[in-house]
Amino acid sequence: MPVVQKEIHLSTRGHCDVRDITPEVARIVAESAIQAGVVNISGVGSTLGITTLEFEPGCVADLQRALEQIAPANTDYAHNARWGDENGFAHLRSALMGTAKSFPIAGGRIAIGTWQQIVLCDFDDRPRERQVLVTVIGE
Amino acid sequence: MPVVQKEIHLSTRGHCDVRDITPEVARIVAESAIQAGVVNISGVGSTLGITTLEFEPGCVADLQRALEQIAPANTDYAHNARWGDENGFAHLRSALMGTAKSFPIAGGRIAIGTWQQIVLCDFDDRPRERQVLVTVIGE
Amino acid sequence: MPVVQKEIHLSTRGHCDVRDITPEVARIVAESAIQAGVVNISGVGSTLGITTLEFEPGCVADLQRALEQIAPANTDYAHNARWGDENGFAHLRSALMGTAKSFPIAGGRIAIGTWQQIVLCDFDDRPRERQVLVTVIGE
Repeated sequence: MPVVQKEIHLSTRGHCDVRDITPEVARIVAESAIQAGVVNISGVGSTLGITTLEFEPGCVADLQRALEQIAPANTDYAHNARWGDENGFAHLRSALMGTAKSFPIAGGRIAIGTWQQIVLCDFDDRPRERQVLVTVIGE
Repeated sequence: MPVVQKEIHLSTRGHCDVRDITPEVARIVAESAIQAGVVNISGVGSTLGITTLEFEPGCVADLQRALEQIAPANTDYAHNARWGDENGFAHLRSALMGTAKSFPIAGGRIAIGTWQQIVLCDFDDRPRERQVLVTVIGE
Repeated sequence: MPVVQKEIHLSTRGHCDVRDITPEVARIVAESAIQAGVVNISGVGSTLGITTLEFEPGCVADLQRALEQIAPANTDYAHNARWGDENGFAHLRSALMGTAKSFPIAGGRIAIGTWQQIVLCDFDDRPRERQVLVTVIGE
């Protein structure tokens, strides 16, 4: 049973930039030729999140608004006070959402819903170059 | 090292219907004969969540109340405005909770706590027929 | 492709005690000799969480404060009313954060960011002896 591991690189704008990475993940899964197993999608860093969403502007806006309520960008954070940073909200959102998710592969494809996309959410307060590791395990 | 993959089907009522799927997952793990590894439990769709909970009516009610505060059913959502849907809250809850989780298998059993059950939360605004993929990888 | 499974044991203080378990996980991954794959880190129980965080006192305090807003320790919970417990908030936080996470292994090491640590958050209302299962799958 093989392990196939590839990287996705993307330039993000930060400030809760929500990006659909499903096509890149699907391509890696297809090229792995693995028919049944699991794919792990992991964004490297502590100011981003990985989740799934119906990727349309309404759901994206609703997620951005909810995260602004849960972890507002412009409130006091102990992280900011301690380090002179301004991205305490980004660290908090990342810890709450999680930076990696795993999904099944069935019939050689990621088994997610038609209206369900895999997204990277960049919570940081500036543009970033992001690295996502995609690890496919199966047979 | 084999991969064993099975489906669970269940009819849900929506509106944060929290359902214990531990017995079905445990049966699939037992039948796989895999002694050590990981099991991935993934609900297909963008209006549901998978997590663990002490499955008793109190904890279920507490989770339902908290999600109603985090993502209220009856407020304005951009998803609803855009598509004429009324389940924007369900999409938001799903993105925040996540639709898939993985747990270890040790000694041929899922290694979770005695008071810890695997639950599917159907956040949608109507009854649904749900599909959950259970993927066991190990040896 | 082997599976390597080890346990971490730690004594926690409860009340959102956030503990860095990255060194123990890294040691298990190194000793497994697995070069590419996935590591699953799973805290056993329904009153704890596993996530990643920049492990410095500011980010820890910010996470503790946010969880106190999302699931306050001293409000009414149906779980408490039903069972005479006082840790309904701990069950709720655990269900929202999740008790297990999986990360890639690349080049024989956990592929997480430099400022990203794996933490166990003990939400319970008393000191606990905690068990974390670390499962490494790969080649």
